[in-house]
Amino acid sequence: MNDLLLRAARGEHTERPPVWLMRQAGRHLPEYRELRAEYSFREAITTPDVAAEITRQPWERYRPDGLVIFSDILCALEPLGVDYRIESGVGPVIDEPVEAPADVPSSYADVPETLSYVGELLALLDDQVGDEVPLIGFAGGPFTLASYLVAGGSTRGHRPIRRFRQEHPDAFEALLSVLADVVRDHLRYQIEAGADVVQLFDTYAGVLPPADYERFLVPLHREILAGLDAPSIVFVRGMGGRLDQLVATGADVVGLDWTVDMAAAREGLGDVAVQGNLDPSTLYADSAVVRERTREVIEAAGPAGHVLNLGHGVPKDAPIDGVAAFVEAAKSIER
Amino acid sequence: MNDLLLRAARGEHTERPPVWLMRQAGRHLPEYRELRAEYSFREAITTPDVAAEITRQPWERYRPDGLVIFSDILCALEPLGVDYRIESGVGPVIDEPVEAPADVPSSYADVPETLSYVGELLALLDDQVGDEVPLIGFAGGPFTLASYLVAGGSTRGHRPIRRFRQEHPDAFEALLSVLADVVRDHLRYQIEAGADVVQLFDTYAGVLPPADYERFLVPLHREILAGLDAPSIVFVRGMGGRLDQLVATGADVVGLDWTVDMAAAREGLGDVAVQGNLDPSTLYADSAVVRERTREVIEAAGPAGHVLNLGHGVPKDAPIDGVAAFVEAAKSIER
Repeated sequence: MNDLLLRAARGEHTERPPVWLMRQAGRHLPEYRELRAEYSFREAITTPDVAAEITRQPWERYRPDGLVIFSDILCALEPLGVDYRIESGVGPVIDEPVEAPADVPSSYADVPETLSYVGELLALLDDQVGDEVPLIGFAGGPFTLASYLVAGGSTRGHRPIRRFRQEHPDAFEALLSVLADVVRDHLRYQIEAGADVVQLFDTYAGVLPPADYERFLVPLHREILAGLDAPSIVFVRGMGGRLDQLVATGADVVGLDWTVDMAAAREGLGDVAVQGNLDPSTLYADSAVVRERTREVIEAAGPAGHVLNLGHGVPKDAPIDGVAAFVEAAKSIER
Repeated sequence: MNDLLLRAARGEHTERPPVWLMRQAGRHLPEYRELRAEYSFREAITTPDVAAEITRQPWERYRPDGLVIFSDILCALEPLGVDYRIESGVGPVIDEPVEAPADVPSSYADVPETLSYVGELLALLDDQVGDEVPLIGFAGGPFTLASYLVAGGSTRGHRPIRRFRQEHPDAFEALLSVLADVVRDHLRYQIEAGADVVQLFDTYAGVLPPADYERFLVPLHREILAGLDAPSIVFVRGMGGRLDQLVATGADVVGLDWTVDMAAAREGLGDVAVQGNLDPSTLYADSAVVRERTREVIEAAGPAGHVLNLGHGVPKDAPIDGVAAFVEAAKSIER
């Protein structure tokens, strides 16, 4: 098996950086849109053979060094008994959001049972491509899930959860805690089911001030990532000035968003492996520019413990040529 | 006149930090909503005696150490011949956005003539309260204005302008350049008309990767702020890991958003004056908590060259008690 990703995640020197694409990596592909026309988003992620086909679409196109499962961070709400749907053009909608402390769930159903479709997806993929490429599982982080849960969907600036944190600090902490339990179980389940690497996406947690991130999130992120039987990657946006807080989570790999200067981050972080961080909008540029910018990221990151990725998810309308140039740039490195 | 703000902006030691509230500071007040019921947003900002009354509302309530004019960053689009409106619940709408290089304006009308209502507002305020409190003028920065102009309004993640930057790099640069010219003229006009301090809000420019901010924005911000006859403050969100890029703009005061650790920023920045940076959502907490958190910010910032502010604008639904506790915390400091 291609073990570049596993070696880079352990901080090892690699002959070139492994490359993969965050998340729902195939959403920009015509074959994805074609297949999705037949299924709702929920149907697509909960039907293992459909999800496996979608997962493999970017594999067929680009042959990345890691293959991220087609799933959604919100599926972690299911064990909590929270229903959600994805509305086209709107995003996630939760009809019964958490509006008051009494709404915070205190228990949750068995994760492998509730989310068995994720395990089945990983088993299928393991059969289909597991010998060729590492499978990447993932889960949303507790703050990001809490933001959706309190707002009832997407929101600019995450004001509802930030207000909830101030008005109901104990309930806020209880909500994060139960979400962290589900997330931990979900990552463990994915590893048991065949994930070779897992990524924790607490994308929005960077809207917390540093003292709050330290107090509420670092301990939970540590708890989630401790004792996993696979390398872990943590990704939080907007942590440029406090990347040490990501190192403190104990993740094997620290994800960097595109607003972080790679060379400066490397200097500040010491030996921990990093992932990132090409500005996703670069994919709209000429292929020659994509290759040049990608090589700059690779050079700034150095030869050891670097997982090449975008600094955020692939845009839904990313041009195929741009994505291909990005992957090729990694593959053309020889050192 | 209360000169705390001017002294802190020059980096001087002050007996307590000056405090003011970014921007459209009175939007959370019932007297604002009452007055606004009679006028559209555009009417309110373009009618000097209405705008003056709205500007003075937070003054009457809180007696801050600086009074920011009631205006909007988008008025800088007027000299460019771009029409916009503010739709309630939606935000700014620009019916004819910049979609292609040919749409980039190449010239603009005389700013003091087009925006004479801003000068009249400042003259009125100067008469009314100019002896008691410094007046703060402001303008949006070129990237932030370009984001609205290309997207046709607000947008999550600023994807349209980021894509435009990649697809049309020359037009992107031309657009920023003409916007910077208007913004510079507008700040100069405000100072001539009576503004004692000005703030440049390029709030969204932090979504650019560091190399792009360095290349496109730093020179324009320098150009805008150079040779102003009043102290200047620069505010850009998401610059935590690269505050030196804000210092490079030549602003007298570097604004810090709420995700920046104040003590660490002070250590890294040396002698430059700073502004900020209480998390605005703190205002929803108990008044005792607001006071405690505010005192922590003041202590971390130290006694010289600190302008106390929130780390972003006042939320529209901020509780009056919270805002009052924030201002009082600054006023209760003795050193």
